[in-house]
Amino acid sequence: MLFSQLIFNLERGKAELQEHYLGKDPELLTGASLENASSSQLTFLEQESSLKSQLSESKAGAVLLPPQPELIQKASEIGISWAVLKNPRLAFAESLSLLNPRERPPEGIHPTAVLGENVLIGNKVSIGAHVSIGNNCEIGNRSIIHPGVVIYANVLIDEDSELHANCVIHTSSNLGKRTTIHSNAVIGSEGFGFVPTSNGWYKMPQTGIVIIESDVEIGCGSTVDRPAVGETRIGAGTKIDNLVQIGHGVTTGKGCAMAAQVGIAGGAQLGDGVILAGQVGVGNRVHVGNRVIASSKCGIHADIADNEIISGFPAIPNRLWLRCAASFKRLPELAKTIRDISRAASE
Amino acid sequence: MLFSQLIFNLERGKAELQEHYLGKDPELLTGASLENASSSQLTFLEQESSLKSQLSESKAGAVLLPPQPELIQKASEIGISWAVLKNPRLAFAESLSLLNPRERPPEGIHPTAVLGENVLIGNKVSIGAHVSIGNNCEIGNRSIIHPGVVIYANVLIDEDSELHANCVIHTSSNLGKRTTIHSNAVIGSEGFGFVPTSNGWYKMPQTGIVIIESDVEIGCGSTVDRPAVGETRIGAGTKIDNLVQIGHGVTTGKGCAMAAQVGIAGGAQLGDGVILAGQVGVGNRVHVGNRVIASSKCGIHADIADNEIISGFPAIPNRLWLRCAASFKRLPELAKTIRDISRAASE
Amino acid sequence: MLFSQLIFNLERGKAELQEHYLGKDPELLTGASLENASSSQLTFLEQESSLKSQLSESKAGAVLLPPQPELIQKASEIGISWAVLKNPRLAFAESLSLLNPRERPPEGIHPTAVLGENVLIGNKVSIGAHVSIGNNCEIGNRSIIHPGVVIYANVLIDEDSELHANCVIHTSSNLGKRTTIHSNAVIGSEGFGFVPTSNGWYKMPQTGIVIIESDVEIGCGSTVDRPAVGETRIGAGTKIDNLVQIGHGVTTGKGCAMAAQVGIAGGAQLGDGVILAGQVGVGNRVHVGNRVIASSKCGIHADIADNEIISGFPAIPNRLWLRCAASFKRLPELAKTIRDISRAASE
Repeated sequence: MLFSQLIFNLERGKAELQEHYLGKDPELLTGASLENASSSQLTFLEQESSLKSQLSESKAGAVLLPPQPELIQKASEIGISWAVLKNPRLAFAESLSLLNPRERPPEGIHPTAVLGENVLIGNKVSIGAHVSIGNNCEIGNRSIIHPGVVIYANVLIDEDSELHANCVIHTSSNLGKRTTIHSNAVIGSEGFGFVPTSNGWYKMPQTGIVIIESDVEIGCGSTVDRPAVGETRIGAGTKIDNLVQIGHGVTTGKGCAMAAQVGIAGGAQLGDGVILAGQVGVGNRVHVGNRVIASSKCGIHADIADNEIISGFPAIPNRLWLRCAASFKRLPELAKTIRDISRAASE
Repeated sequence: MLFSQLIFNLERGKAELQEHYLGKDPELLTGASLENASSSQLTFLEQESSLKSQLSESKAGAVLLPPQPELIQKASEIGISWAVLKNPRLAFAESLSLLNPRERPPEGIHPTAVLGENVLIGNKVSIGAHVSIGNNCEIGNRSIIHPGVVIYANVLIDEDSELHANCVIHTSSNLGKRTTIHSNAVIGSEGFGFVPTSNGWYKMPQTGIVIIESDVEIGCGSTVDRPAVGETRIGAGTKIDNLVQIGHGVTTGKGCAMAAQVGIAGGAQLGDGVILAGQVGVGNRVHVGNRVIASSKCGIHADIADNEIISGFPAIPNRLWLRCAASFKRLPELAKTIRDISRAASE
Repeated sequence: MLFSQLIFNLERGKAELQEHYLGKDPELLTGASLENASSSQLTFLEQESSLKSQLSESKAGAVLLPPQPELIQKASEIGISWAVLKNPRLAFAESLSLLNPRERPPEGIHPTAVLGENVLIGNKVSIGAHVSIGNNCEIGNRSIIHPGVVIYANVLIDEDSELHANCVIHTSSNLGKRTTIHSNAVIGSEGFGFVPTSNGWYKMPQTGIVIIESDVEIGCGSTVDRPAVGETRIGAGTKIDNLVQIGHGVTTGKGCAMAAQVGIAGGAQLGDGVILAGQVGVGNRVHVGNRVIASSKCGIHADIADNEIISGFPAIPNRLWLRCAASFKRLPELAKTIRDISRAASE
């Protein structure tokens, strides 16, 4: 795609194109990072990027820039094509979609797929090899079910969803529009509920359901359990990375983001816009307020108010934790000082 | 199901029905939590429940109560049907099984399933679409193998077991009666064993086997490795949640419970009734005593005696850890006090 | 296999056979640990083994020993066959391969496998039941694809590789010679990249690829993501255990080892020979030097120099951490001492 064609599209995008310089109007094939980009590649820089100084050595065909005069000047000096946008990272994302449009598998139902009774398949759906779909399911228009996916009975999958290879959707789950489930994720499996008895653990039947709202993405190998009663709910626009565990009866608000290996125990409730970094744990029935940010490996055992930034285990405010962690390194030294003072005092 | 029919069944259950009040003998369809239950739903309350005060506003059709006079009185006042049982949670579990009996997939072997040579299939077994079973396997009576499951050669699966979609059972594994393996779990895969050499890691062949005793449940995506020699063993009645790693040569006692994302390193040995909360780690060859309880994110590096309750990393007694964690938050302040004293002393 | 035959093979192996005593030249069937070995089993002892004292009670058919005269003498006294090798553990690994040679599934393409257009299959390849392979893939000579594996389009798999049941390889991934991918692992899935906008998270297309160099092993359920641009690369000879997350754009050096449930965030770079114990986390874009060893649950947030041994969260030198952890246990006591001193001083 010529850079001029890309500009034509970015003008209609959301990244707010401000000005641009076509230069030799290079043919762009793919995107690349600033250090690695070649003359057929697009790259970008952000306001706060530590790579700014490397712009003058870039071999990229074109660069997307934030509205910063010194960057524009530098790009012009080295004769590279450029565009200035309010949000160059967003423009880069839009550009990658244009340069490398996602290939759709062919429409239709592969002959090796096995469908139960009373399955409704929308228009332009693609169902891959060795897929298994239980009775009374519904697959919305344009949805893609990749090979090896297993869907139990009574599942609803709304329009424009994509289920990657070998993921499993359990009975009565309800997936909203534009849901993406990545490979080997498991949605709607039985929650971990047992009643202790004198004869051992007695299984609590998990008769509830999982509801995934629209525009949710769930990573490879992640698991979202259904509860004993009621529902587990993932709020619209929430993005979940790989190997994340969502316990039975959890609800999340809209637009949350969870990095890999996060674990959320049964009945916990997350507000809107919560961000959990990698390997964070949230305890049973804990309420996490809107827009809370938890740094990696944080363990959240008690309710957290809106807008808090937390760290550590048990979780405390991030700023306090940074100071505590700094003191922790000096503990042996502090302990020695105390001993010295104590000894001096008792002499 | 009419409440009276449910009572008839609970009298034969294990939750010890003491008395009941049929009221209008409501038709019950499902279970629900106390806050959400409607007139066609059953709910329950426990001795220590924080929801007790909400009983008077419940719209449930019927409620299962512990033997507490004030709760019985309140239920009677609002005219709700009730039953009193020694263990209302257990009664609720029994009730859910009655109200929503598990649907069994149809008996028989799906035509797309691929079976090796010398495979023995018991009576009333269900084998789903696209299942693959290796040579010399045996599937016990009434067991259910859901679609997409892969079973390698020489595997024994005892009666009344259920293997959920896309799980994998590796060679020579031995699964006891009433085993449940959830979706995408992997049993009997090669343990992580390598010998360091001057040419890099040399693979230690993993020629041992995995034995899963009866009544074990293993969660979605969890992995149980086989050892170089000997066996990995999961004790009877042990329940394992999602995304748990059980290393090669681990043995667990009977009736253990492990929450999601627990990791147990090779050769560790757990006693009976051990409970590990979410994201706990157990080190190589560590012995964990009977009935030990480890709180979430705990890291167990050294042997633990019977009946200990432990927390933190490295694991210490829970009570001590609670006090240490409280002090940790005050570390910067303590450090400052020490500096002040030290300065005062040296003046 | 007779012990004499084993010796014949070990002489040609890498463990450096020094001397041996055939004794009754026992027929050996399998390997076992020293405590459990019977007369038809081989066992071994290492220089530093805590089991040495048990040698005199061993019922093993034969034992592999390090060059230690007292062990040789003890073995001779009890009349057990023995061999002395510089590296008895390596010899045991070689022996297990000889005693229990891996069974290869039959050559050929199972009739239920579904192959796309322009797929190149090498010689002596085995492709199992219900495998799905996309367009333009290449499978090298002697590689084994177990049942249920899904390979997207444009994937290259080099010679002598093994893909275990139900793993998934995403588009354009490139797997080197002798790669092993264990069950339910996912290679080349979309990295977790989103641009925050006023309308929520906007997906950053993941147009890069994953490159797995030769002799790499990736455990069950582990995930290796592809990046927005460029590559994710796993260095030659690296061994990765189960349920490990490798984020988009990560590169690892040669011969690294990662235990179960390790998580490496996007863009992190590991040197050669890095060893990460269980549940370790590595933060975004962090550089971890050559031969760094991180103990379990360690959280690495900042760059680490070559050869460091680190622990804790945030990661600090292991020796310091051990002392800090010891002090942590005494925090309540230290806090009390400070209070006492402080009170005394102010009186």
